[in-house]
Amino acid sequence: MHELVRRLYPLCRSITGDGVRATLDIVGEYLPLQVREVPTGTRVLDWTVPQEWNIRDAYVADASGRRVVDFAASSLHVLGYSVPVHRTMPLSELRAHLYTLPEQPDLVPYRTSYYQPQWGFCLSQNTLDALPDGDYEVRIDSTLADGHLTYAEHVVPGQVTDEVIVSCHTCHPSLANDNLAGIAVATFLARELAEQQPYYTYRFIYAPGTVGAITWLARNRVERVKHGLVLACAGDRGPLTYKRSRRGDAEIDRVMRYVLVNSERPHSTHDFTPYGYDERQYCSPGFNLGVGSLTRTPYAAYPEYHTSGDNPDFVSADAMADTLAVCREAFAVLDRNRHYVNQSPYGEPQLGRRGLYDSLGGRSDAKEAQLAMLWVLNLSDGTHSLLDVAERSGLPFDTVGVAADALRDAGLIKA
Amino acid sequence: MHELVRRLYPLCRSITGDGVRATLDIVGEYLPLQVREVPTGTRVLDWTVPQEWNIRDAYVADASGRRVVDFAASSLHVLGYSVPVHRTMPLSELRAHLYTLPEQPDLVPYRTSYYQPQWGFCLSQNTLDALPDGDYEVRIDSTLADGHLTYAEHVVPGQVTDEVIVSCHTCHPSLANDNLAGIAVATFLARELAEQQPYYTYRFIYAPGTVGAITWLARNRVERVKHGLVLACAGDRGPLTYKRSRRGDAEIDRVMRYVLVNSERPHSTHDFTPYGYDERQYCSPGFNLGVGSLTRTPYAAYPEYHTSGDNPDFVSADAMADTLAVCREAFAVLDRNRHYVNQSPYGEPQLGRRGLYDSLGGRSDAKEAQLAMLWVLNLSDGTHSLLDVAERSGLPFDTVGVAADALRDAGLIKA
Amino acid sequence: MHELVRRLYPLCRSITGDGVRATLDIVGEYLPLQVREVPTGTRVLDWTVPQEWNIRDAYVADASGRRVVDFAASSLHVLGYSVPVHRTMPLSELRAHLYTLPEQPDLVPYRTSYYQPQWGFCLSQNTLDALPDGDYEVRIDSTLADGHLTYAEHVVPGQVTDEVIVSCHTCHPSLANDNLAGIAVATFLARELAEQQPYYTYRFIYAPGTVGAITWLARNRVERVKHGLVLACAGDRGPLTYKRSRRGDAEIDRVMRYVLVNSERPHSTHDFTPYGYDERQYCSPGFNLGVGSLTRTPYAAYPEYHTSGDNPDFVSADAMADTLAVCREAFAVLDRNRHYVNQSPYGEPQLGRRGLYDSLGGRSDAKEAQLAMLWVLNLSDGTHSLLDVAERSGLPFDTVGVAADALRDAGLIKA
Repeated sequence: MHELVRRLYPLCRSITGDGVRATLDIVGEYLPLQVREVPTGTRVLDWTVPQEWNIRDAYVADASGRRVVDFAASSLHVLGYSVPVHRTMPLSELRAHLYTLPEQPDLVPYRTSYYQPQWGFCLSQNTLDALPDGDYEVRIDSTLADGHLTYAEHVVPGQVTDEVIVSCHTCHPSLANDNLAGIAVATFLARELAEQQPYYTYRFIYAPGTVGAITWLARNRVERVKHGLVLACAGDRGPLTYKRSRRGDAEIDRVMRYVLVNSERPHSTHDFTPYGYDERQYCSPGFNLGVGSLTRTPYAAYPEYHTSGDNPDFVSADAMADTLAVCREAFAVLDRNRHYVNQSPYGEPQLGRRGLYDSLGGRSDAKEAQLAMLWVLNLSDGTHSLLDVAERSGLPFDTVGVAADALRDAGLIKA
Repeated sequence: MHELVRRLYPLCRSITGDGVRATLDIVGEYLPLQVREVPTGTRVLDWTVPQEWNIRDAYVADASGRRVVDFAASSLHVLGYSVPVHRTMPLSELRAHLYTLPEQPDLVPYRTSYYQPQWGFCLSQNTLDALPDGDYEVRIDSTLADGHLTYAEHVVPGQVTDEVIVSCHTCHPSLANDNLAGIAVATFLARELAEQQPYYTYRFIYAPGTVGAITWLARNRVERVKHGLVLACAGDRGPLTYKRSRRGDAEIDRVMRYVLVNSERPHSTHDFTPYGYDERQYCSPGFNLGVGSLTRTPYAAYPEYHTSGDNPDFVSADAMADTLAVCREAFAVLDRNRHYVNQSPYGEPQLGRRGLYDSLGGRSDAKEAQLAMLWVLNLSDGTHSLLDVAERSGLPFDTVGVAADALRDAGLIKA
Repeated sequence: MHELVRRLYPLCRSITGDGVRATLDIVGEYLPLQVREVPTGTRVLDWTVPQEWNIRDAYVADASGRRVVDFAASSLHVLGYSVPVHRTMPLSELRAHLYTLPEQPDLVPYRTSYYQPQWGFCLSQNTLDALPDGDYEVRIDSTLADGHLTYAEHVVPGQVTDEVIVSCHTCHPSLANDNLAGIAVATFLARELAEQQPYYTYRFIYAPGTVGAITWLARNRVERVKHGLVLACAGDRGPLTYKRSRRGDAEIDRVMRYVLVNSERPHSTHDFTPYGYDERQYCSPGFNLGVGSLTRTPYAAYPEYHTSGDNPDFVSADAMADTLAVCREAFAVLDRNRHYVNQSPYGEPQLGRRGLYDSLGGRSDAKEAQLAMLWVLNLSDGTHSLLDVAERSGLPFDTVGVAADALRDAGLIKA
């Protein structure tokens, strides 16, 4: 995963443009993707697909022709969606177009202006402070024109058409944790699931933030989406953070809590807030999907957030592997979690004659497997899921799942 | 307010009579009142309006003619609703008609006998102990006759006919905290509201306890009452106490908790109990109104309660001002608290093109005003009020209210 | 009760057979019982009544003819439901039929094989270790043949046909706490109730565990059962343990919590689990009855459990008396707990003119009885029981009950 992050890092992604396409091309080497192109001007919910932005070069050069700010060095140096410009102007005039972080003078900020035509450069405060007065050539060789918004999907077909979505954003330029780590974890998670025969259909969505998710929601059968997870900031060295769906008690919320608590990883969980990543859209009140958000250090909560400090060294291979492991464990529970109905609910069914119960009575060391069967039978009234059984009984989810399989095979419970 | 308390203090109020009328006359100098007179014998719910009681003079005089207990000195000295008497009797016989507080020998108790014809005097234990044996002249120059029960209302009209009631009792004679402080706070609160154009219609009720509130309930369109507050014991130096309505989670209960907690005043809140003041009637199970009770030290919880110790010096101008301030803050929230419905609930609406969102992206210091808009949009599904939004988001109610106004003006939410 | 335990202890009970009948005969000396006999082969829910097992003698004898394991010494020595056998075999072959407790080498375990035809002996590890190699005569003089399953009932008729069941198991051989103490407490409780005129009909069920309860459930009008208690392990010296019904908030659960908390006995309460005693059957999801389980030390939680250590000395007369007292207190609350509806719910009814209220007003020491009436009136909206009133008000249940009786007699509330 770390290699994938490194390969994607230099590309200049935005909410549209060839940087997104190049990103999806590289991801496509790891996982087959269906790439969707949606034309500029398409109405998507309350929004309209904007013009496509592409950029070839951009710099600020001093009187000697030396590039003092250079897009070639980092895609962060240009204000996202900058309109083209090529002029010479004094530093005093240029300053209104320069963005810095005075509190973090070594770092270059990430800034955009998608919906107001502007141009600008981002640079460190130190670089700015070192610039002598005088005239500078500024050039942004960009185009803003009708084109497309690009997103991609990978679908792992399941036994049912009910879907679990995994969504990550693809619109941030050279930012590693906030963008690329989520892309990497999603990609490797999809590869693993593709090797299984899951119960649910799993749909992985790679789309630009906000307008991309809105475009996806506008064009898809959202009623199929039963559960989902937004992956972002998936690679920093902080502990895991799960932000619940707007519902607060959606099945994915229950599953993530169960897995995080039982895995004994340090972690925190939070209620839904309507800012952050694309859970904002999936959990808008009209959709109100059961979609949570998994990060390590959350959105805007680390000093490197939206700066040049969020580079490939900021993310760790171990952290990404850990995020991936939690997703794997959570989906193993989610995928197997059913609401069964006991077909013999009056009294206990006689398990012994079905070979499901020890013939020797009187022993107090009843086996976990038998306890699990009694729990599943007792709570299978259609309102309790296997996760409920695991939580009520204190038995491991897997033990409960095995018991449920045996009871289902004996015809004693039905989903 | 303290001046009003001092002016009202000497009057001999009861559940009927001229003392109540004189009280309302003085209040009427501060606030126009509609005074209602309900004839003796009128059926009001399970009760009947009693005969009217008036008293001109009352005393116990010793053999020398010296008044050892004198109604002219304090209206507390006579048992409320005493029937007329004029006799001479030995102290031994008189004792059965004398009420004292042996545990608080300096203080005169407050006692009544509304529904059993009796006569009696209240005096301090010390006074009683100093009385020599011998004959005493006892005289109570009272009348108990058909007449009226008197209560008053002041209505501040609102944009809607849904009402908030503020109720205080007017039946206690010379007791300052338990009666007059509530009257004073209600009166000044009404004056403030009258200068605004509130959303709700606010109805201030000045009525004798129990039978007065019952009379009001019997004669009014109770279904209009959406919220309410009983004010009593509003002037002592103790911290504020809010007693929830019988419902426990009525909007007034939520608002009072929010304001008390967020104002960081020392305070306590309690569940409903079916004794105390007229919340007993408003919260009887048939009505079950969303009416709470605000006091400082609650009913019967201070040693001066229902004694001559509850005099104008016992209440403080600062305490009454503080009670008034909390009412003002609470009604500011209550009056503005709406349940909005997002008119664009699928995904976030594009705030930028409506001028409601910063055009510059990437900054992590999103302004409170923008967060408030996202919160209001996200929770405006008809089930969450602005107070819910404030509590969930942790943003100040006022910030949430301003955001809601902007969104409503942009047509994005509707009440 | 301890005498009853001692008398019953030697009998060889099982899920069928003459040991059960002999047990019920002795109980019948204390309490008239209706004994039911259900033929082998009868379908009962998912089960079938098994063949009847009877045993006259059983032993392992050494070459000298000395009985080294002897059923006559303790009914525990034979594996319950052992098929007949009479052979001589070397110890090496016999070992597969011998059950011991290596961790508790002094104690004889209790083991059964109801549904697999086997034979075996239970003995202490010490006894086994002392056996020299060589041939042993093994004899089990038992019969397994069509017959009956035997259970018994005692019904205390109430004012209504709604029932409270008290269920105890009768299938364990020489085990005192786990079986006999519950039988003893149930029997003495039934005798006490029979001297009263209870509101509910109380049905005491003496039945073998699992298949006995299932048989009872299959043959009775379960919809009449409103509340119930399974009694077991009722005599050891540990503190009381109440296990809630599957519903978790059934009335019996509320009552038991109230009584245990207010009696200030050391105790613990637990959520339902689908193992233990016959609450497993009563609380199976199809029935889901409001039946809890009262024990002292619970099922399988003491080292003497299902061993020869659970003998009459293990149970204490005081502990059984304490269990009985808690049952008595709980049923006193349950039997009197009603949901009343205030017939005068608009405002408070005038209690004074009905003689239910002190005529002298102004006193702050309102009597508990009057407070209780106000509480009952206020909460009697059909959704609150008297127990709710007691819990909300903090008043003793009995005070609340007395107030409710007075209000009911005055026509102010109706059940």
